[in-house]
Amino acid sequence: MPAGPDPFAFRGVLVERFGADRVATAPEDRRLLSADASRRYSDCVAAVFPDREEDVVALVFAAKELGFSIVPRGAGTSPTGSAEAGPSQVVVDFSRMNRILDLSARDLVAIVEPGVLCGALQERCEKEGLFYPPDPASSRVSTLGGNVATGAGGLRAVKYGVTRDYVLGMRVVVGDGSVLDLGGRSLKSVVGYDLVRLFVGSEGTLGLTTRLTLKLLPKPPSAAAIEASFRDEAGAYRGADAILARGLLPRALEAMDGEISAIAARAVGLDLPAGVGSKLLVEVDGDEETCARDVDRVEAALVDAGAFETRRAVSPAERDILWRARRSVSSGVYRAYPAKTSEDFGVPRGSLAEAIAAMKEAGAKRGVKVLAYGHAGDANLHVNFVYDPADPTAKERVRDAVRAAADVCLAFGGTTSGEHGVGLKKLDAARRELDPAALRYMGGIKRLFDPAGIFNPKKAIPPT
Amino acid sequence: MPAGPDPFAFRGVLVERFGADRVATAPEDRRLLSADASRRYSDCVAAVFPDREEDVVALVFAAKELGFSIVPRGAGTSPTGSAEAGPSQVVVDFSRMNRILDLSARDLVAIVEPGVLCGALQERCEKEGLFYPPDPASSRVSTLGGNVATGAGGLRAVKYGVTRDYVLGMRVVVGDGSVLDLGGRSLKSVVGYDLVRLFVGSEGTLGLTTRLTLKLLPKPPSAAAIEASFRDEAGAYRGADAILARGLLPRALEAMDGEISAIAARAVGLDLPAGVGSKLLVEVDGDEETCARDVDRVEAALVDAGAFETRRAVSPAERDILWRARRSVSSGVYRAYPAKTSEDFGVPRGSLAEAIAAMKEAGAKRGVKVLAYGHAGDANLHVNFVYDPADPTAKERVRDAVRAAADVCLAFGGTTSGEHGVGLKKLDAARRELDPAALRYMGGIKRLFDPAGIFNPKKAIPPT
Repeated sequence: MPAGPDPFAFRGVLVERFGADRVATAPEDRRLLSADASRRYSDCVAAVFPDREEDVVALVFAAKELGFSIVPRGAGTSPTGSAEAGPSQVVVDFSRMNRILDLSARDLVAIVEPGVLCGALQERCEKEGLFYPPDPASSRVSTLGGNVATGAGGLRAVKYGVTRDYVLGMRVVVGDGSVLDLGGRSLKSVVGYDLVRLFVGSEGTLGLTTRLTLKLLPKPPSAAAIEASFRDEAGAYRGADAILARGLLPRALEAMDGEISAIAARAVGLDLPAGVGSKLLVEVDGDEETCARDVDRVEAALVDAGAFETRRAVSPAERDILWRARRSVSSGVYRAYPAKTSEDFGVPRGSLAEAIAAMKEAGAKRGVKVLAYGHAGDANLHVNFVYDPADPTAKERVRDAVRAAADVCLAFGGTTSGEHGVGLKKLDAARRELDPAALRYMGGIKRLFDPAGIFNPKKAIPPT
Repeated sequence: MPAGPDPFAFRGVLVERFGADRVATAPEDRRLLSADASRRYSDCVAAVFPDREEDVVALVFAAKELGFSIVPRGAGTSPTGSAEAGPSQVVVDFSRMNRILDLSARDLVAIVEPGVLCGALQERCEKEGLFYPPDPASSRVSTLGGNVATGAGGLRAVKYGVTRDYVLGMRVVVGDGSVLDLGGRSLKSVVGYDLVRLFVGSEGTLGLTTRLTLKLLPKPPSAAAIEASFRDEAGAYRGADAILARGLLPRALEAMDGEISAIAARAVGLDLPAGVGSKLLVEVDGDEETCARDVDRVEAALVDAGAFETRRAVSPAERDILWRARRSVSSGVYRAYPAKTSEDFGVPRGSLAEAIAAMKEAGAKRGVKVLAYGHAGDANLHVNFVYDPADPTAKERVRDAVRAAADVCLAFGGTTSGEHGVGLKKLDAARRELDPAALRYMGGIKRLFDPAGIFNPKKAIPPT
């Protein structure tokens, strides 16, 4: 084979322009930085680590000039492949743009670079009597830039809403290399089209975020949690309904089926009573007396809904154990079942228990075990399909089961992603979910902001 | 002058296609339906009253065929001219599409047609133990379609957010006549770009909404209000800060200056203590005991911040009086000062008192009296510039004062519209506020959804 021109000669140009300490080209780095939690490994050409907005702009111009596309990367926690980079792509890794630039108690506003960890902002707020409510289960390891790019939800959405509701402004580099300065520091604004929210959840396909202005709240004085065990799997969802029906609005309502409850308990060394069909973890906040009374009321609702055991967690240490258990679920399931695929379905609230039962049945029919947990308040389910990787027929059966479960979800009028996004993994599901006419316009928006197709191509929206 | 072809011959075609009972062409109807609360009167060619989505689609095709543009109208309460129709335009009046199609306590969802009054949905929810939190001061007369089109805020945004945060899905007819079915019934979804929020606040310039799916909450069991009077004008804002600094998050924090307080009190026959420089109206919600205790805490904060009188309103009847007073402000100012122009500025929270003082000074320098009230929680101010219409120099001085006040607002990093929108009246302010590069892309979005320029042309975004 004759040696043609090196297709990746632009690696050298990147090193030249950005400096060797800001470009990774070694195979092991490239492999690591091309992968996300979807566990589909790929191989980028190089990764660039910008220190400031100017670097990001320069990278966009380089992409246009040299003909590569760009995959933005926060912490690589996406389970959908939205941060996965393939050959001929360059990763832009925001880990060095990790400064909290401003935190104002007066204005209830934080300004951050996209590489700041969600948990780092939460902690900093906590210290200053402030509160950044969005709380993806990954908050300790995921970045705010990634949270915004995927429109992350999390554990407190039932009362406080999702990441989308806390982005007041942002700076984004778009396809022509210009920097859009969107929104601002006011808590409300309706001037111009809401481009901020168009970028939230667009998975880096419309531009690269270099700065975020986030809304904060005063820190609630206190919080308390209570966990309830039910004999049947629908119990946790009945419990959540009973709480809301009494006019209580907890900040978290987390359900887990029996096996997930066991995995979570094991992860932190908690006892689990025998015969648990489901568990519900509830957290309320407010002043101390309100919390105490709300926990009483929540407990009464849970017992009425059939809970056979409840466990209160009032001190921060007690609450911490329950939450560590909850946050360990995703990795715990992975340890218990290294071969799994997990989905992130949303359904109308009233259909929760019925939808889960139908999804489990769809799995059972195909010999696939289905485990479910999720946010019972906003009816967003994490459904795990686990299998034996040694069984040659398993993968095919899982694929069928996932598709059948998505059908269940869509038949109930649900969504195939409540908070993880589409990435590469859910393009087919997104195509089935989205109105074809709407999808055509989404394609138009992509072409408007990114005519050359530089940003995270072929992700987030299925091609039309 | 030779009689050319009748430029408005399409009036007859509209009557033919939609029926005489669904088209208004009489001069008095046209005049009424062309005007909104911006009090700039204009004159449309005709108004069409659709009964269903098919009518709206037919109207869009008629517009393309016959060459007119369409101005959507809810209840005509826009103070910016966004519902104002000029010659050669056709108004589409949604007042007959006013059905609540679904109200589900199980799913916490309502599906409505755009002509439903906000207050009608609130009342219906109330009866079923549900809660639709967005509450523009105009809720009794404004429509949900209009609320969504302008991205309305209102009286409870500090705790519950704005209209934008409650729209789960919508159906919209866009420029090619296709109907986009956006979002759905799930409380969370991140599949595809967030076109729902792109349409929210777009003031009918991108398409015509025919159906809305709205998120509801369980009805808080109880609420209580407290009003405090301060000697100085900054007092109300100090009071709001003191409340938030104690970790309390009331559902409303409404400030009024001294003269506005007098106007509000007069409207409902309430006594006003002498020497009021400002007032703050605070409402908390939750269970009865929490409300009682929170009112105590709020009162303590207000007294510490310098309140010289407080008045509690715990029973629904007592609360109703305070809220009627608050809701009467806009019309009360109009009655007291028929010649006024009012702005809807937002500033960073911490700059509230300072910004108002600077705006009043900007008015005083030009001999213009400035009255201010607004949402102290989210720092959204209704600033009224009142003048003597008999004074020939007044209008010019008011124009100067408004511009100077907008400069103050922008210098503080604020926004020239927190919740009313841009319409026609604030195009110049919007141009000064928005990033020029972002504005260019907004123009691109307008052309994408409405290439023929049919929908509410020349509004919401300044031309580039």
